[in-house]
Amino acid sequence: MSEKKSRQTRSDYLFFHELQTRWKDNDIYGHVNNVEYYSYFDTAVAAFLVSRLGLYFKTNPVIAYVIETSCTYFAPLSFPDSIKVGVRIAKLGNSSVRYELAIFKNDEDHACAQGHFVHVYVDRASDKPAPIPDDVRFAMLSILTPAASAGSL
Amino acid sequence: MSEKKSRQTRSDYLFFHELQTRWKDNDIYGHVNNVEYYSYFDTAVAAFLVSRLGLYFKTNPVIAYVIETSCTYFAPLSFPDSIKVGVRIAKLGNSSVRYELAIFKNDEDHACAQGHFVHVYVDRASDKPAPIPDDVRFAMLSILTPAASAGSL
Amino acid sequence: MSEKKSRQTRSDYLFFHELQTRWKDNDIYGHVNNVEYYSYFDTAVAAFLVSRLGLYFKTNPVIAYVIETSCTYFAPLSFPDSIKVGVRIAKLGNSSVRYELAIFKNDEDHACAQGHFVHVYVDRASDKPAPIPDDVRFAMLSILTPAASAGSL
Amino acid sequence: MSEKKSRQTRSDYLFFHELQTRWKDNDIYGHVNNVEYYSYFDTAVAAFLVSRLGLYFKTNPVIAYVIETSCTYFAPLSFPDSIKVGVRIAKLGNSSVRYELAIFKNDEDHACAQGHFVHVYVDRASDKPAPIPDDVRFAMLSILTPAASAGSL
Repeated sequence: MSEKKSRQTRSDYLFFHELQTRWKDNDIYGHVNNVEYYSYFDTAVAAFLVSRLGLYFKTNPVIAYVIETSCTYFAPLSFPDSIKVGVRIAKLGNSSVRYELAIFKNDEDHACAQGHFVHVYVDRASDKPAPIPDDVRFAMLSILTPAASAGSL
Repeated sequence: MSEKKSRQTRSDYLFFHELQTRWKDNDIYGHVNNVEYYSYFDTAVAAFLVSRLGLYFKTNPVIAYVIETSCTYFAPLSFPDSIKVGVRIAKLGNSSVRYELAIFKNDEDHACAQGHFVHVYVDRASDKPAPIPDDVRFAMLSILTPAASAGSL
Repeated sequence: MSEKKSRQTRSDYLFFHELQTRWKDNDIYGHVNNVEYYSYFDTAVAAFLVSRLGLYFKTNPVIAYVIETSCTYFAPLSFPDSIKVGVRIAKLGNSSVRYELAIFKNDEDHACAQGHFVHVYVDRASDKPAPIPDDVRFAMLSILTPAASAGSL
Repeated sequence: MSEKKSRQTRSDYLFFHELQTRWKDNDIYGHVNNVEYYSYFDTAVAAFLVSRLGLYFKTNPVIAYVIETSCTYFAPLSFPDSIKVGVRIAKLGNSSVRYELAIFKNDEDHACAQGHFVHVYVDRASDKPAPIPDDVRFAMLSILTPAASAGSL
């Protein structure tokens, strides 16, 4: 039905952010609702940027808009699972960046979900696409996958 | 960077569910956070099924697992926008179904976001894939797109 | 165990905001999770202010901090219930305001939950308490309960 | 405007659950939205019960309904703060229990928010109040505050 994706492992990722599931993440079937996985992705991307750049999002003249996200779900999560979200960058363009993300449950080595997240940088005032600032780009290079190109997208 | 998708219009959809944005859907930039769009999708699929089948999810012997979702964001939403979520089915297999969804803001005719949502039906007791029950399949046929096939996926 | 509160009716309220429950509001027991009621309250207060003042929150020099909230739950809600949130003001001080709120389910006349919400206005720049601006105060007076005093708190 | 509450410290609490804030917990003003504090409380109560009783909530014949909650907010939280939620029991009745909770930010010793949470136990089948089961009561006694009485409420 959909392109088959193989489950990745922790060694495929370059930055990790740990999160605790919350009681209300569970749905009526006792599993974390599909929506919450995106809040784990969203938080891990922000945590990566904060870890490198501090609270840049409060004052930076450019802001990042999310223009595309996806997730493939392999195995359920449930409260009170603890998770680590793996983050890497697969494409780095002039004003956009494609993150790839995976969710690792408790001590498991294979991802229980994988997805991606595309940010486009825009000028806060004009709302027009803007180049990724140099310090942000430098931080991003540190988690660029070997196979990725940092050139044009 | 990603496959270009053209913005669809209301006439591309066959079922609609109306929702109100909530104050906390807004993020620090004053736009609905990317995560919440999936709760609109999730709610619209459930609302479609309830509209045809009643509160089937409380007692049915099979349950639907979400195995894949995606969203492309074209234009921002903000509280207090009101939205209508369009729902249609693009593929209907033996035990799985691919929904396509679009979010229409206030009176706009072009979608501000579009995505998809794949459900696989499993037996509640055995957790193994199970055929979509006849009454559910019958409901699904009512929003199958003309281009879709209801055969094998 | 707690002060007994009597269930109020729609006639006890002066402003109403309609909301749709979402699939993920339901918890593992099939009822709306206790947390979400506060998002209904929060949204209804914001909707009241927007209805009178427009998108004031984007530009106003003072902002409102929530310093206290509570909720008493009388009867469960579940997706796909539709709700109306009743809003009134019980106390209006120089820089603070006490909202009282109630949630009415579908066509029911008695509240299924009631609570309150205290806002303190602060200057956006200095973060110090600031008088409620005149236009905001004027809006608030329109939903002040007869028993309330608009004087000192 | 409201009863003044003094900010408590970590030594006032008997069980702690650590949580990470999420990006979307932040509201338009860059602070954790008032609603999310209740998801921290809700999660900490569940984590306490799971820590003592395992995944009791999946199979136990009684379930706990939340009938009352409140929160007083002293100082803001923001992503990426890490928090510890303190939990204690102030009243333990035949079928109900009053938890008191406090949120401690990063390394701070004073709570940035405090609240309470009342559960009433009901029989899952009949939906009528039921005694708190002995094993659950035994777990609860371990975090009963010295000043509390475990008798009638």
